[in-house]
Amino acid sequence: MPTLATKSSPDSAEAIERAEVAVLPTGSTEQHGPALPLGMDHYAARAFAQEAATDDAVLALPTIPVGVSPHHMQFDGSLTVSPETFAAYVRETIESLATHGLRKVIVVNGHGGNIDALSQVARELRASETAYAPTWNWWDAVEDLADDLFDEAGGHADAAESSLVWHLHEEYVDPDALEAAEADGADAWGERVHGANVGFDTIDFTESGAVGKPTQASPEKGEQLFDEAATALSALADWLAERPIDDCWQRAHK
Amino acid sequence: MPTLATKSSPDSAEAIERAEVAVLPTGSTEQHGPALPLGMDHYAARAFAQEAATDDAVLALPTIPVGVSPHHMQFDGSLTVSPETFAAYVRETIESLATHGLRKVIVVNGHGGNIDALSQVARELRASETAYAPTWNWWDAVEDLADDLFDEAGGHADAAESSLVWHLHEEYVDPDALEAAEADGADAWGERVHGANVGFDTIDFTESGAVGKPTQASPEKGEQLFDEAATALSALADWLAERPIDDCWQRAHK
Amino acid sequence: MPTLATKSSPDSAEAIERAEVAVLPTGSTEQHGPALPLGMDHYAARAFAQEAATDDAVLALPTIPVGVSPHHMQFDGSLTVSPETFAAYVRETIESLATHGLRKVIVVNGHGGNIDALSQVARELRASETAYAPTWNWWDAVEDLADDLFDEAGGHADAAESSLVWHLHEEYVDPDALEAAEADGADAWGERVHGANVGFDTIDFTESGAVGKPTQASPEKGEQLFDEAATALSALADWLAERPIDDCWQRAHK
Amino acid sequence: MPTLATKSSPDSAEAIERAEVAVLPTGSTEQHGPALPLGMDHYAARAFAQEAATDDAVLALPTIPVGVSPHHMQFDGSLTVSPETFAAYVRETIESLATHGLRKVIVVNGHGGNIDALSQVARELRASETAYAPTWNWWDAVEDLADDLFDEAGGHADAAESSLVWHLHEEYVDPDALEAAEADGADAWGERVHGANVGFDTIDFTESGAVGKPTQASPEKGEQLFDEAATALSALADWLAERPIDDCWQRAHK
Amino acid sequence: MPTLATKSSPDSAEAIERAEVAVLPTGSTEQHGPALPLGMDHYAARAFAQEAATDDAVLALPTIPVGVSPHHMQFDGSLTVSPETFAAYVRETIESLATHGLRKVIVVNGHGGNIDALSQVARELRASETAYAPTWNWWDAVEDLADDLFDEAGGHADAAESSLVWHLHEEYVDPDALEAAEADGADAWGERVHGANVGFDTIDFTESGAVGKPTQASPEKGEQLFDEAATALSALADWLAERPIDDCWQRAHK
Amino acid sequence: MPTLATKSSPDSAEAIERAEVAVLPTGSTEQHGPALPLGMDHYAARAFAQEAATDDAVLALPTIPVGVSPHHMQFDGSLTVSPETFAAYVRETIESLATHGLRKVIVVNGHGGNIDALSQVARELRASETAYAPTWNWWDAVEDLADDLFDEAGGHADAAESSLVWHLHEEYVDPDALEAAEADGADAWGERVHGANVGFDTIDFTESGAVGKPTQASPEKGEQLFDEAATALSALADWLAERPIDDCWQRAHK
Repeated sequence: MPTLATKSSPDSAEAIERAEVAVLPTGSTEQHGPALPLGMDHYAARAFAQEAATDDAVLALPTIPVGVSPHHMQFDGSLTVSPETFAAYVRETIESLATHGLRKVIVVNGHGGNIDALSQVARELRASETAYAPTWNWWDAVEDLADDLFDEAGGHADAAESSLVWHLHEEYVDPDALEAAEADGADAWGERVHGANVGFDTIDFTESGAVGKPTQASPEKGEQLFDEAATALSALADWLAERPIDDCWQRAHK
Repeated sequence: MPTLATKSSPDSAEAIERAEVAVLPTGSTEQHGPALPLGMDHYAARAFAQEAATDDAVLALPTIPVGVSPHHMQFDGSLTVSPETFAAYVRETIESLATHGLRKVIVVNGHGGNIDALSQVARELRASETAYAPTWNWWDAVEDLADDLFDEAGGHADAAESSLVWHLHEEYVDPDALEAAEADGADAWGERVHGANVGFDTIDFTESGAVGKPTQASPEKGEQLFDEAATALSALADWLAERPIDDCWQRAHK
Repeated sequence: MPTLATKSSPDSAEAIERAEVAVLPTGSTEQHGPALPLGMDHYAARAFAQEAATDDAVLALPTIPVGVSPHHMQFDGSLTVSPETFAAYVRETIESLATHGLRKVIVVNGHGGNIDALSQVARELRASETAYAPTWNWWDAVEDLADDLFDEAGGHADAAESSLVWHLHEEYVDPDALEAAEADGADAWGERVHGANVGFDTIDFTESGAVGKPTQASPEKGEQLFDEAATALSALADWLAERPIDDCWQRAHK
Repeated sequence: MPTLATKSSPDSAEAIERAEVAVLPTGSTEQHGPALPLGMDHYAARAFAQEAATDDAVLALPTIPVGVSPHHMQFDGSLTVSPETFAAYVRETIESLATHGLRKVIVVNGHGGNIDALSQVARELRASETAYAPTWNWWDAVEDLADDLFDEAGGHADAAESSLVWHLHEEYVDPDALEAAEADGADAWGERVHGANVGFDTIDFTESGAVGKPTQASPEKGEQLFDEAATALSALADWLAERPIDDCWQRAHK
Repeated sequence: MPTLATKSSPDSAEAIERAEVAVLPTGSTEQHGPALPLGMDHYAARAFAQEAATDDAVLALPTIPVGVSPHHMQFDGSLTVSPETFAAYVRETIESLATHGLRKVIVVNGHGGNIDALSQVARELRASETAYAPTWNWWDAVEDLADDLFDEAGGHADAAESSLVWHLHEEYVDPDALEAAEADGADAWGERVHGANVGFDTIDFTESGAVGKPTQASPEKGEQLFDEAATALSALADWLAERPIDDCWQRAHK
Repeated sequence: MPTLATKSSPDSAEAIERAEVAVLPTGSTEQHGPALPLGMDHYAARAFAQEAATDDAVLALPTIPVGVSPHHMQFDGSLTVSPETFAAYVRETIESLATHGLRKVIVVNGHGGNIDALSQVARELRASETAYAPTWNWWDAVEDLADDLFDEAGGHADAAESSLVWHLHEEYVDPDALEAAEADGADAWGERVHGANVGFDTIDFTESGAVGKPTQASPEKGEQLFDEAATALSALADWLAERPIDDCWQRAHK
């Protein structure tokens, strides 16, 4: 499996030469209710990155394990860094890779709270023609399947996330707690009043920390989600590999 | 109309004393296709703020006219500031108001690109118990009505926006250009490939700068949108006025 | 009137093409004693910018309404942002305009507290050959006339400012309060001890917030001031329009 | 093994309650010559942290895989973040842990280039009484043993590092390349001229990227180093567990 | 002479205890035309600080020799730091002194370009009740005398500055060059067009680097200036010594 | 003696033309126990810089007197700036010198706490090919001699420092206090527990502030140290003068 960190420097030169695309897993370490592990989001990102990096065309970078999670800090065990710090850590990691010649990166992201920062990083890296680094969120790649499998609005530690991590890391999941997660959880993300979101923290609208219908989860459904999302990521990598780098850069002024 | 800037300092002391909530209009100056004015988003925000500030309970702050619009910069006339600068400008404006005793603010926002920065500002102001300042985006308050009025996915310079500004500022709208806006525009925001958003700039997916079905616009529909959204904003102001400030602050650690 | 925000993007392309100079109004929202509105400084800046932008050669940008006013914060209603934030907001606004090809900007400033930040912005923009953006303060253009009209050292909410805003916005001025403004005000700005300025805030030396002789104000004198200053601004715009951009840039090392 | 990320939020509450000390592994992804993997430093840090976290008193945090490595960037595969970014990422991770009540952290560090930044973080966290977080570098704990085992000045990808990673990750080590590492390497770190260090980058003084005598390495020696260093880390954790937190804080002004 | 740096730590404790006020000399190293030394401004500041610190009530801090001089950089030998860096260096120096109990500081400043940054520092230190640190510029203390002695508008390397440094450091002054300084210099600072300052750098308006009438200088006049300014500084120190610290802090909200 | 600040701008042009290398003295103002002056480190740096600048090939810059000393702040009289501020002040000073054509600088440093920041500055200046500015610490140039002269591990206000400043500034040294310095001091720097440095501040391990054997000091030994270090600095300047600037820049990617 082409994983950058396992290689010596000279071997990495060859691997970078052969690779068309790098994958950078980003996640978080934050509460996912009483049934799922805190590392849920970075475990998912890492698993997808490793699955993508099974042939020489895709090179996996180290996993960035702590993300932007200030909205979970009332729940024990949650870690967070600021959006600025997270963005800088991701941006500089990609910038340094780019100096060795690999300028196409898929940020394989497992945490919604990271998205704003990742979008800004991707914009900056493209504007300076340093790297083209779009974000790929696994849940965006399986929207239809998730709609088929679950009857939930979801959003956090829901049936989809529960299924996925149950498939990936059964040893860290407590199925008995899924019921409590749902019972004390919320049906949908946020707290909306006359068009405004007035709930900024998870605890504003869910006591268990979960949002959705985790009791609908199963490892088998998790496997389905994983396979479908991994297929999409693979297709994205192929698409990006074939796209000329000059087509990736920012378009000129109209 | 209680507008802060029109009052003398002693009069503002009374106005702040009487007011329960301030409204801070934020928008942008950026391309809205060939038919709508660049100021669309700050005109909308200003109009809603003024409408809300018709009795003593709501005090209108000055309009912040330039927002976070890097994704429109290939189109002529677009102005932008960075997310950090925009966030700081909004945050410090609210912080200074709070020193005079008014700690509930609705940020009346007219521009989607401002949302990430405004969310972060709202979080920080609440975490420090300086102010409670949720964002209100006018389009979020009229989702159902917009679905009734228009058949579009929309997103920018669409039928909803076109209608609203046609109602507010007929003099700045060129109805003859709506057709070109739509013909050379996009049906939906962004460019999605296997779950990833790979189009970062408006120009990546729309030649006219518009996204949606602006030909469905009319000033009458704009009036309907304005009235419904203004009613929602008024209700939000009432809700916030009644909410004890201590219930607004961040909840304690679980 | 060529005002950027009122134009569509394609129309702005033409307006920018035709324009030689942009004007960017900057002011503040801060105490101006018991008789004048908090918005005094940005009202003045906006009025001068609009007056200047009456032909195609001058294009007006949106008004930046909150400035650097920490020294007024003990007085109700005053808003402020830090010098760094104000400078960034102005600089990035001008930078984004420059990307469309208009590189000569007059910052039409209504607030003394903004000057340090504006000087630094002008220096940076010139050093990078992004834009040439000198500051124009209206009071500097009418020194002789003000000396003729008033017998004051002045400096804030004085006879000159009172007259100007009385002319521009009679509806926001309370002439009955001018006497109290003067009676409880100061004769001159600051508090000087053996060559050092030891008064940093307005409240250190004026109880009313005014400095000068506001009772000498009249709307007629305001009109005289406005006309003379507007004439000077127009002449400045002409001068700048004719100056080759290469003569505007920073001179080379000796 | 008490590893934070594997636990659910409620379980982490108990684990944090039981734990006396957290261990945070920090390393780098950077060239270690032709024989050793790029991930050497974060693999080492992670291994020591996991070994330390075998009873409930020590809780392992996620591994931070990219560190401060600008001096290795001429060698393929090296990644780096700036000292400021690395410091912020570590500091905020520890700060967020501290909000849950665990304020003693050992930063288990595998990379010399991180030390300056970690010292500054430790100082700041102590000064604000947020956390007490001294750095532990594994090589500092085995100086005498390394002197016994190897005849080298060393410093990077040397016999000590080679042995350790050979013991931990035989699969990533290429023993055949150790000879070249040494032959084209340097005897000692840096390039000193009349008391000044005039070589800032590794490539200034080593062609292979190694500094020391890697041919003296063996997995058995690596095991000895690992065991001795792990024992020291365990003793450090015991020492810190017993130290009252008030004795950890900064002393008062003399 | 009570100079902090010359004392041991225990002796400094006593000196700080006895002192009422500290003086911090700040200047620049920048062109002062063909006749005067680059160090003019920090030499002046240092001389005044030393003169003030002749009894135990005033303690002299080290001289900060490089200031904010971007506008002189086209002239050889000029050094500069940014306003932010200069401000931080001064602020943190004063903050650290304040931790030992001395909270009244006169910043004895020799360079006009430092004033904006020093004002901001003074404001911040007062707002946080860390220290009260007004700026004292020597030329502000001798305005009348300078008017008597010289017939110049002046501003830089003028008759006043030339006289002062001639008195202080005859060995660094080249009297023969004063004529050229004046001949190729400017009569007044800046380049004003219709009320706007359009000359940002010294070289925009003076070829020699001097502004004023340096040929009117003499060491005798320099001595007069020095004595009068030193007397004023001494009086300022007395005034500040007697002022209760609570009267120095920022006044409360009105 | 070629000292930049003493020269006029035109004369400095010639001096810069003739000079091959500049020397920038950096130190601190911080406790050095009961016998030595707070200015010890910047006095030493200044003395070495002046000694080096005795012929035209070496040009002395102003002395930067306050450094990075947070670890001494419990001792009276210590001043400090943050590493970021110190780094910026040094970097910008060197950058501005480089604009006049002198790109080789030796930072003559007297304070260990400055080293991390100076290394980072040197790296940045080299990476951008602005200047090549290695740090020279006087104690690194006399290691063997110090070992011959003294029987100490040392580190701060030790026999070596005491001797040096006794030689340079007898008037600021209190020989009678050397005994107390040693008696209440520490034998070695820091407090090490199982491989970790757990003492961050000087006061954590020394009551007097001294570390080493100051009673072994004498002015004669100080003279020996000074002469030997000065000879080394002179040789370093010669070496740097002869080194082509292109050999100073960062090497290309391997």
